[in-house]
Amino acid sequence: MKKAFDTEALAREAKEASRTLALSPADVKDKALREMARALRAKRRAVLEANRKEVEAAKAAGRSLAFLDRLALDPSRLEKIAQGLERVAGLSDPVGKVSDFSLRPNGLKIQKMRVPLGVIAIIYEARPGVTADAAGLCLKSGNAAILRGGKEAVQTNSAIADALAEGLKAAGLPKGAIGFVRDKGRASVHRLLSLDGFIDLVIPRGGPSLTVMVRRESLIPVLSHDKGLCHTYVDASADMKMAEEICFNAKAERPGVCNAMETLLVHAAVAQEFLPRLARRYREACVELRGCPKTRRILPGIKRAGEADWDAEYLDLILSIKVVSSFEEALSHIARHGSGLAEAIVTKDPALGRRFQREADAGAVFVNASTRFTDGGEFGMGAEMGISTQKLHARGPVGLEGLTCEKYVVTGEGQVRDSKMI
Amino acid sequence: MKKAFDTEALAREAKEASRTLALSPADVKDKALREMARALRAKRRAVLEANRKEVEAAKAAGRSLAFLDRLALDPSRLEKIAQGLERVAGLSDPVGKVSDFSLRPNGLKIQKMRVPLGVIAIIYEARPGVTADAAGLCLKSGNAAILRGGKEAVQTNSAIADALAEGLKAAGLPKGAIGFVRDKGRASVHRLLSLDGFIDLVIPRGGPSLTVMVRRESLIPVLSHDKGLCHTYVDASADMKMAEEICFNAKAERPGVCNAMETLLVHAAVAQEFLPRLARRYREACVELRGCPKTRRILPGIKRAGEADWDAEYLDLILSIKVVSSFEEALSHIARHGSGLAEAIVTKDPALGRRFQREADAGAVFVNASTRFTDGGEFGMGAEMGISTQKLHARGPVGLEGLTCEKYVVTGEGQVRDSKMI
Repeated sequence: MKKAFDTEALAREAKEASRTLALSPADVKDKALREMARALRAKRRAVLEANRKEVEAAKAAGRSLAFLDRLALDPSRLEKIAQGLERVAGLSDPVGKVSDFSLRPNGLKIQKMRVPLGVIAIIYEARPGVTADAAGLCLKSGNAAILRGGKEAVQTNSAIADALAEGLKAAGLPKGAIGFVRDKGRASVHRLLSLDGFIDLVIPRGGPSLTVMVRRESLIPVLSHDKGLCHTYVDASADMKMAEEICFNAKAERPGVCNAMETLLVHAAVAQEFLPRLARRYREACVELRGCPKTRRILPGIKRAGEADWDAEYLDLILSIKVVSSFEEALSHIARHGSGLAEAIVTKDPALGRRFQREADAGAVFVNASTRFTDGGEFGMGAEMGISTQKLHARGPVGLEGLTCEKYVVTGEGQVRDSKMI
Repeated sequence: MKKAFDTEALAREAKEASRTLALSPADVKDKALREMARALRAKRRAVLEANRKEVEAAKAAGRSLAFLDRLALDPSRLEKIAQGLERVAGLSDPVGKVSDFSLRPNGLKIQKMRVPLGVIAIIYEARPGVTADAAGLCLKSGNAAILRGGKEAVQTNSAIADALAEGLKAAGLPKGAIGFVRDKGRASVHRLLSLDGFIDLVIPRGGPSLTVMVRRESLIPVLSHDKGLCHTYVDASADMKMAEEICFNAKAERPGVCNAMETLLVHAAVAQEFLPRLARRYREACVELRGCPKTRRILPGIKRAGEADWDAEYLDLILSIKVVSSFEEALSHIARHGSGLAEAIVTKDPALGRRFQREADAGAVFVNASTRFTDGGEFGMGAEMGISTQKLHARGPVGLEGLTCEKYVVTGEGQVRDSKMI
């Protein structure tokens, strides 16, 4: 009988390594990241060869083109992965930052210090790029990482993990700092999710079925991304030309991503003017429109939007459109159907824009800009681990800071507490 | 057949109310809090009468004195509860605060805005004070609350909840803003923990069995407090008199609370000088000492500390003592046995103190002060919901800010994204 992969030993080693990592200065971590990029380039042939075989196997298994596209590497993609590690090396280190000084009446000095979380497990699908990307962000933020990628990419990921291990070694960091689950079985995933004594955070990166499974099963806190059901609301006060550009961009520039718009809400007072011109634009890009009854009176040729459309994340060139009679109706629709990722309003009225920013409940709320900007890079984080649709801990794009936490550090001169004084 | 309590309807109503609450200005929320205090005083007789019956029932059921003490109210305790609501009304409102302005090269203005979490469920034991306390903090931070207290206090809590409802009404706030589970069955708790569509956060307040059950079962994010296993490390560089005062206070001033010291670590170089004088102090307070072999060579009369002692949260006048040969050994012991609540060092060396603050992994790390200061009031928060031993979201004492989150608000002038430019 083949010996089962020892997930717990890997997690224990990661926990041990996390103490070293938490105290490693930025230059050591950056050296490791640059050496990883170097090793990845040096091992290019082995990585690409492993990947070629896995792509062939996936083809033979009849996997979809989209799946194969996510799985496949080529020299240019591999170079981008290496550059990603170097870019993370160039980011500023969040660990050790001290803030919020306060002096209490008894003389205690209270501050907050930013520290790593400890051990972060990333569970993802067959996207080899995530292996280096996630490991790099964890390392830079002082966390040990445990990586468990999709079974169809385990050889490619193993080859990449070997390069990452070389980088750790070159910088004198413990190899447990990046643990790779070299195992295809689901059992190792279930085991990981139970190791709350060793792992501080789990991040699932993949489709809804993975995320839901991880959330239901994990004893460890989860940072996850539900889905992206983003709205753009074009108010009666909108600049029509601006609204057209924003709506076109939000839907058509890259429809397969979570920050693309899925539903357009238009104020009734401008629907007659706005929708026909927008529909002409969308026609160029072959966007399929589905409308509420009012929309279909203005654009008679389009399909009816059923109840299911308001909850659909199409990730495709399809858009549902609803004409609303007020700002409040738009907000209610968003409250009921939004996924909390991003929402946008187009308006020339700054007060209305601020009200929308306050009232629309999402990780990122835009005034007069495309929801497509919901992205760690666009927000100036340099890199992102994902986009959180949760409210706890980190909301919106998650960069290095989202992989850390703050603890209180208190300095006294011998103060003791007297409860009776209260 | 008696109709089951409709937990889902309560949660739905809370979700609905949370939208109103999120937008309510501070003066409306403060009016509600003050009116709650007023109503609580006006209903004093009904609350105390309900409580008297429940205390009697608990006595008849043979509950412990500690249990009865937590359950029982009297006019002075009730007045303190009312004053607590008024104190929360006086705190500054965290909602709507905007921070971290950044201007992106494309002209997008990115900020963070502090907003309520939404709906918070609090599951607690038979401590009627928590009812008003938790409801007040949720209300002030703009969150709807769902309260589910211990079954032995359901009548007392109902009477308190009636007073809270009057306060909401007087301020024109929806009654769903504070939902009270008027039900004794466990089924309503299990139901609550499954309502992740309506509830944003669950806070268990009670013993380890409650917390563990909630963590294992909840589909909703949990903010909880594990246990308090706090250490004080007396370094060779410590001022002996200061160390004596801090150690005496941390153990003996109020041993039954989570921020009391449970294990003392003493550097070998000063153990011979320090331990006998400390043992004399502890003798006055009847503290039972249990020591490692080295400790027992210095204090021959005391019990042996077994392996279990290093993991014991005594919550009593018992202390385990270990002599360590280095700063590093102290840190290793803390890493293995600490609960992440609070740790302290006594040292005259500021650099060593800073190193301890960085390396000891806990929500609050003290230099030259008693761990007993780990408390929202002592930290200047004005009130606290509890002390989180988690790393995600909120660590250490949790005040109003810990019941909120930050979202990104982005303001543009028509910017659209061009992925091809990247």
